[in-house]
Amino acid sequence: MSYDRITAQNSAVLFVDHQTGLANGVQTQSPPEFNNNVKAFATLAKVYKLPAIITTSASDGPNGPIMPIVTNLLPDATIVHRPGEINAWDNKDFVAAVKNTGRKKLLIAGISTEVCLAFAALSAKEDGYDVYAVIDASGTWNKIVEDAAIARMVQVGIKPITWVAVGAELLGDWRSEHGEEHAQLMGDHLPFSANNISGYLAAKGQ
Amino acid sequence: MSYDRITAQNSAVLFVDHQTGLANGVQTQSPPEFNNNVKAFATLAKVYKLPAIITTSASDGPNGPIMPIVTNLLPDATIVHRPGEINAWDNKDFVAAVKNTGRKKLLIAGISTEVCLAFAALSAKEDGYDVYAVIDASGTWNKIVEDAAIARMVQVGIKPITWVAVGAELLGDWRSEHGEEHAQLMGDHLPFSANNISGYLAAKGQ
Amino acid sequence: MSYDRITAQNSAVLFVDHQTGLANGVQTQSPPEFNNNVKAFATLAKVYKLPAIITTSASDGPNGPIMPIVTNLLPDATIVHRPGEINAWDNKDFVAAVKNTGRKKLLIAGISTEVCLAFAALSAKEDGYDVYAVIDASGTWNKIVEDAAIARMVQVGIKPITWVAVGAELLGDWRSEHGEEHAQLMGDHLPFSANNISGYLAAKGQ
Amino acid sequence: MSYDRITAQNSAVLFVDHQTGLANGVQTQSPPEFNNNVKAFATLAKVYKLPAIITTSASDGPNGPIMPIVTNLLPDATIVHRPGEINAWDNKDFVAAVKNTGRKKLLIAGISTEVCLAFAALSAKEDGYDVYAVIDASGTWNKIVEDAAIARMVQVGIKPITWVAVGAELLGDWRSEHGEEHAQLMGDHLPFSANNISGYLAAKGQ
Amino acid sequence: MSYDRITAQNSAVLFVDHQTGLANGVQTQSPPEFNNNVKAFATLAKVYKLPAIITTSASDGPNGPIMPIVTNLLPDATIVHRPGEINAWDNKDFVAAVKNTGRKKLLIAGISTEVCLAFAALSAKEDGYDVYAVIDASGTWNKIVEDAAIARMVQVGIKPITWVAVGAELLGDWRSEHGEEHAQLMGDHLPFSANNISGYLAAKGQ
Amino acid sequence: MSYDRITAQNSAVLFVDHQTGLANGVQTQSPPEFNNNVKAFATLAKVYKLPAIITTSASDGPNGPIMPIVTNLLPDATIVHRPGEINAWDNKDFVAAVKNTGRKKLLIAGISTEVCLAFAALSAKEDGYDVYAVIDASGTWNKIVEDAAIARMVQVGIKPITWVAVGAELLGDWRSEHGEEHAQLMGDHLPFSANNISGYLAAKGQ
Amino acid sequence: MSYDRITAQNSAVLFVDHQTGLANGVQTQSPPEFNNNVKAFATLAKVYKLPAIITTSASDGPNGPIMPIVTNLLPDATIVHRPGEINAWDNKDFVAAVKNTGRKKLLIAGISTEVCLAFAALSAKEDGYDVYAVIDASGTWNKIVEDAAIARMVQVGIKPITWVAVGAELLGDWRSEHGEEHAQLMGDHLPFSANNISGYLAAKGQ
Amino acid sequence: MSYDRITAQNSAVLFVDHQTGLANGVQTQSPPEFNNNVKAFATLAKVYKLPAIITTSASDGPNGPIMPIVTNLLPDATIVHRPGEINAWDNKDFVAAVKNTGRKKLLIAGISTEVCLAFAALSAKEDGYDVYAVIDASGTWNKIVEDAAIARMVQVGIKPITWVAVGAELLGDWRSEHGEEHAQLMGDHLPFSANNISGYLAAKGQ
Repeated sequence: MSYDRITAQNSAVLFVDHQTGLANGVQTQSPPEFNNNVKAFATLAKVYKLPAIITTSASDGPNGPIMPIVTNLLPDATIVHRPGEINAWDNKDFVAAVKNTGRKKLLIAGISTEVCLAFAALSAKEDGYDVYAVIDASGTWNKIVEDAAIARMVQVGIKPITWVAVGAELLGDWRSEHGEEHAQLMGDHLPFSANNISGYLAAKGQ
Repeated sequence: MSYDRITAQNSAVLFVDHQTGLANGVQTQSPPEFNNNVKAFATLAKVYKLPAIITTSASDGPNGPIMPIVTNLLPDATIVHRPGEINAWDNKDFVAAVKNTGRKKLLIAGISTEVCLAFAALSAKEDGYDVYAVIDASGTWNKIVEDAAIARMVQVGIKPITWVAVGAELLGDWRSEHGEEHAQLMGDHLPFSANNISGYLAAKGQ
Repeated sequence: MSYDRITAQNSAVLFVDHQTGLANGVQTQSPPEFNNNVKAFATLAKVYKLPAIITTSASDGPNGPIMPIVTNLLPDATIVHRPGEINAWDNKDFVAAVKNTGRKKLLIAGISTEVCLAFAALSAKEDGYDVYAVIDASGTWNKIVEDAAIARMVQVGIKPITWVAVGAELLGDWRSEHGEEHAQLMGDHLPFSANNISGYLAAKGQ
Repeated sequence: MSYDRITAQNSAVLFVDHQTGLANGVQTQSPPEFNNNVKAFATLAKVYKLPAIITTSASDGPNGPIMPIVTNLLPDATIVHRPGEINAWDNKDFVAAVKNTGRKKLLIAGISTEVCLAFAALSAKEDGYDVYAVIDASGTWNKIVEDAAIARMVQVGIKPITWVAVGAELLGDWRSEHGEEHAQLMGDHLPFSANNISGYLAAKGQ
Repeated sequence: MSYDRITAQNSAVLFVDHQTGLANGVQTQSPPEFNNNVKAFATLAKVYKLPAIITTSASDGPNGPIMPIVTNLLPDATIVHRPGEINAWDNKDFVAAVKNTGRKKLLIAGISTEVCLAFAALSAKEDGYDVYAVIDASGTWNKIVEDAAIARMVQVGIKPITWVAVGAELLGDWRSEHGEEHAQLMGDHLPFSANNISGYLAAKGQ
Repeated sequence: MSYDRITAQNSAVLFVDHQTGLANGVQTQSPPEFNNNVKAFATLAKVYKLPAIITTSASDGPNGPIMPIVTNLLPDATIVHRPGEINAWDNKDFVAAVKNTGRKKLLIAGISTEVCLAFAALSAKEDGYDVYAVIDASGTWNKIVEDAAIARMVQVGIKPITWVAVGAELLGDWRSEHGEEHAQLMGDHLPFSANNISGYLAAKGQ
Repeated sequence: MSYDRITAQNSAVLFVDHQTGLANGVQTQSPPEFNNNVKAFATLAKVYKLPAIITTSASDGPNGPIMPIVTNLLPDATIVHRPGEINAWDNKDFVAAVKNTGRKKLLIAGISTEVCLAFAALSAKEDGYDVYAVIDASGTWNKIVEDAAIARMVQVGIKPITWVAVGAELLGDWRSEHGEEHAQLMGDHLPFSANNISGYLAAKGQ
Repeated sequence: MSYDRITAQNSAVLFVDHQTGLANGVQTQSPPEFNNNVKAFATLAKVYKLPAIITTSASDGPNGPIMPIVTNLLPDATIVHRPGEINAWDNKDFVAAVKNTGRKKLLIAGISTEVCLAFAALSAKEDGYDVYAVIDASGTWNKIVEDAAIARMVQVGIKPITWVAVGAELLGDWRSEHGEEHAQLMGDHLPFSANNISGYLAAKGQ
């Protein structure tokens, strides 16, 4: 595999089933950690104006509506409510929406990791996309399930990644137009970073 | 590898040595978690009428009989009592039973992961089957053993999976004939799912 | 403190806020472990015909209804829906119901451990009851919270206990009238116990 | 010890050395969890208008300024910058500020748990205050240190507690004037709670 | 409490329900660790000729016989097979056997920690014995249960201890008659100790 | 890779630097677990009369002599004391000894996993051997090191395995001549297995 | 208990059996963490010129000599080589040395926690000293042993503490004569502290 | 992949963003462990006179200066301060410096693992270098991120390694000129090794 970078021009973001009821089943991260990571990933999509597609499974039932922390950050995202298909790729509207972005790199997160993320990722890979599984913006019922899901995806060439790395490829250079906004995003979701900035400014007398 | 899905028509389920004595040696999950996962996996076989083959190793000795939670759910499964072969694939009746299902995808679980699951999986893969190692319906003595076993299987192309993902590929679409039964199965074995359903119905006033 | 035993005649069981929405916040045990422990504790109340009082906090709102695994086992329990009081002991009906049992030993479980269990336990202790905090039938958001809650309760003389120990004090002697039912309960919720029984019967040729 | 409740009238909140440099040393919780807990605890002080005293140790040096997440929530808190005293109780202004609140219950959090929290707590206890150590809004370098610090404080009658329990004693009854604000606070810092509310409102069609 | 030492003259050892079936339920230590600790504790009883009483619960049923690693080391121990009593202290023969030793310090281990160990310990303490709970020669189903059991015992003054400390009080001085035998015991059950001895002798050219 | 089995005729066992001083550096397993696994692996070599080669690094210095638990079980093993080479494969006598066995499958264990095991494994693989890394009979300083070492070996096709799986391939069938001896070995090193045997025999009245 | 502070005038430091062979048995902290804590504690004794007594058990045998990291920092400490007594308090020279310091507060660390630390601590407490168990400068074979030992000591009023808290009580005020030296000590053993200082100086342009 | 060894002639060392502010964000190792590993890796570069390149990201801002533990050991390293590029490989001076070493094997460590290490590693691999990711001299925000980063690097053939293995390949033979210096380095950073040496010398009477 060549190392072809994620950019704001070649990538799209997919949120698969980040619904309130499903989020309550996540036990691979603590809830504050998970929400923090989901928010950070959604903010990346916002800052870099990446095409974002949100899809749901039975969102008018027990799975619940889309997590407000996602929709609040991405009010203009395309939303595809799937009437029943478990694999988002089985829904024509979803596949069309992805194709419509014109992007070949797909940054996918999902609840759960082994179904909502993995199924979409495996299908997209099959269809020729360059697929990134955003592990920390995804979650599932326990560590055994998460590990098996990652191994299954890595086995076929899907790239495991986490939101800080996604963001760092997108930013590329701190001197870019997004540098300041990106620093704010880092500070908001990586507490040590905010601490460092506060400490630095204080030492500078600012 | 292409992403060819598990369906009720192309898959068979193999339980290798889920015996009461061996189950007492499992330390990679807590016993309630393990039993929960084994039951869920067996229920999938029942709901989707997958051909199921149960095999045992010296079940009239200290290894003990088949775990009743398996046989209770799958009373009509083919049972092959192996007189001594450790690798189930060394038993002609077992291989014949598998062949007889006419299925090319094998969903295998076993106690222990590194012997009963891995040996059958390695042999079946060698014989040209598309093999899935159902990790959470399998168990072994400690985490180091489990991790080594998974790495060994993944190395040769065996696909690691867990029961919720197996079920989700089988169901495919919540609108299918098995939707309701599947929701019941999920609620029975993923407590957050049952909680969501109860909460939803209560909010609806049902 | 003297070692005065829990008996079917001197004890009552209190379930404080075992509601579906709150149960989804428990991260101190895996969900299958937690449900298993709650069911086992409720079954003890059923087997020993202990007076059982279930109380809820805003059960018609987001906290959700009582977990069905509790009400299914204890259909005749007294239920006190609290209109707003967080500490169950602040609700006169609840305190009256407790007093009405005539029991001096209270076996309390709650979600969460540090609020619903601890507040009721602290108040009951203050009022002169002999209070047992049933830790494994209770749960909360993380280990730090659970440990602090247990330390706070132990500090004032509330007795920490878990359901197997509660059951063992209640049974007292395997030859008692409840012996068989108790063995069934143990097998249903402690998998190694069921495995032992199956293995034993098989070896006996039964 | 009698169970005398925390109320908005009898309690004050003390933040001891929540400084950016020290926060970077906390390894007993993940940083997102820790920030979440500190924010929640500060928000409690805000909602219930508890007298709040923030003290710092060498805040113009490497320890860094007060964490902005604290000062942003409590802009009117009394701030005592200690010129050198490690135990906040050795600073007359701090002790006077505490005394000036007229409150006998002190809810103390600190970085680190074993020094900044424990020393102030031990001294305040010695001076006759009813002291609560707010464990999850405090942090330190590793688990061994945290456990030893809690054991030392519990040994002398300081009460271990966590922010949800503090809040629940303060609220007392969901029907109180602070009910709605409190629910918002819970949802903002306990993700499952926000998920439950969203799911409930969706099910209600709201 | 004064610090009155364990000696070979003032102490007796009690093994409560170290049966093969129950041992398979222990998940608080890995099985090799647990067996190692049980063996070491039994060997201490042998080396110091402490009166040893072994008691069983339904040892002709699914709980299984006494673990051979115990009986092999202590062939002359008094064995009390309890026909049904869960608390060993409810069995007159057992209490008489204990009394008959003439010892006031009881070193108790049991499977499980919260029932077999804790009940005997609580009753013996009530009867005026100086009770030591030998934690690492005991085990139970999970960490939550173990922690609650220890807290319950410590709360009433039962002393938590582990086998190396028991042995060290018994030995007292390496120059005593048991020094060599004790060093052998340490080497056999604390691998670093055997490693040190081998390395030392090699360096000495012995 | 084809699944070509380990047999008593095609395999040799290599112990690389199982020396007392190095064993004291192992922190990836508890010492009783590690010794148990090393002993079990050595016993396999004994039972199946596998050619065994033990090599040491500076065994007359601080690394210490060969662990007696290895030499006691394999008194006739070939021992190659390396005067300085870290990678055992750099020592001509060692390579010659391996070649002299005539076996193409090498079952290697070492302390440490990432040096003594990995280096020999990488070199042997390079030389055309079919290499198995016996993970649980090996150990190192911490989990990060172990995981990196396994990933490095798996990356080049070295097969990760653990002693129970090695033994199971060697035995093949419980009816073979080694069946009884093998059962003894399992019972001695997998405690649940010994417990099952004892319980079974007791139930049988044997 | 009143909160009477540790000062350079009222305290002495006791190192019980910090020998190289015993240190290799510590598994309750990683070796780098343990050495770091032992060094920090010894450095405190040096900086504050606390009377320091080092005692050993059979230091000319397999237990090995005193860890050089201790003797290098405290070349003038009193050393008592015990010819055989396990409890240091059984050695008259040791007790005399302690008495000779004239200090009533004893800061004790030991390997192992449950024997070398606990025995000396229990005896010293019995003799009327105010005893502090310095947990992180002590270590033992596993977490179960450590937890039991701490519980046993806390039960009788021995105070659990860790080196940073010891140091903070000794320093008292950063403006004291030891302030600079203490900051150096903190930076050397708490890496975040050194990082903060470097970052601060850099921001200041120093 | 062939097993081509790391030597002092074919390798260079790259430190990517080991800055004080970033180091405070590392939570995948305890700070003492992390500093210990970074120091050991830097010392290897010093002992073997490997070309060393240190690069920083915004080192005059909140990320802070290079960790002094690195620069103190490698005062002559080439330092490339990147004005904004996140991927060090995007900086021409850095790439030129690497090329200028004439080495084809790159031993890279970075903070964070998934950005600073992984990006440089992926780019260098793309450019034809033989890349080693030195995992334990690198660190990041949590275990999920670290595991995903390692999986991503391993997937493309980057070799995971840790400092002891790097050192062992460099040394090759203990009789080489660097043997003594290397032993010192091991003892300084692997405490058990220092303990072994001290114990050995003592036993020898040296």
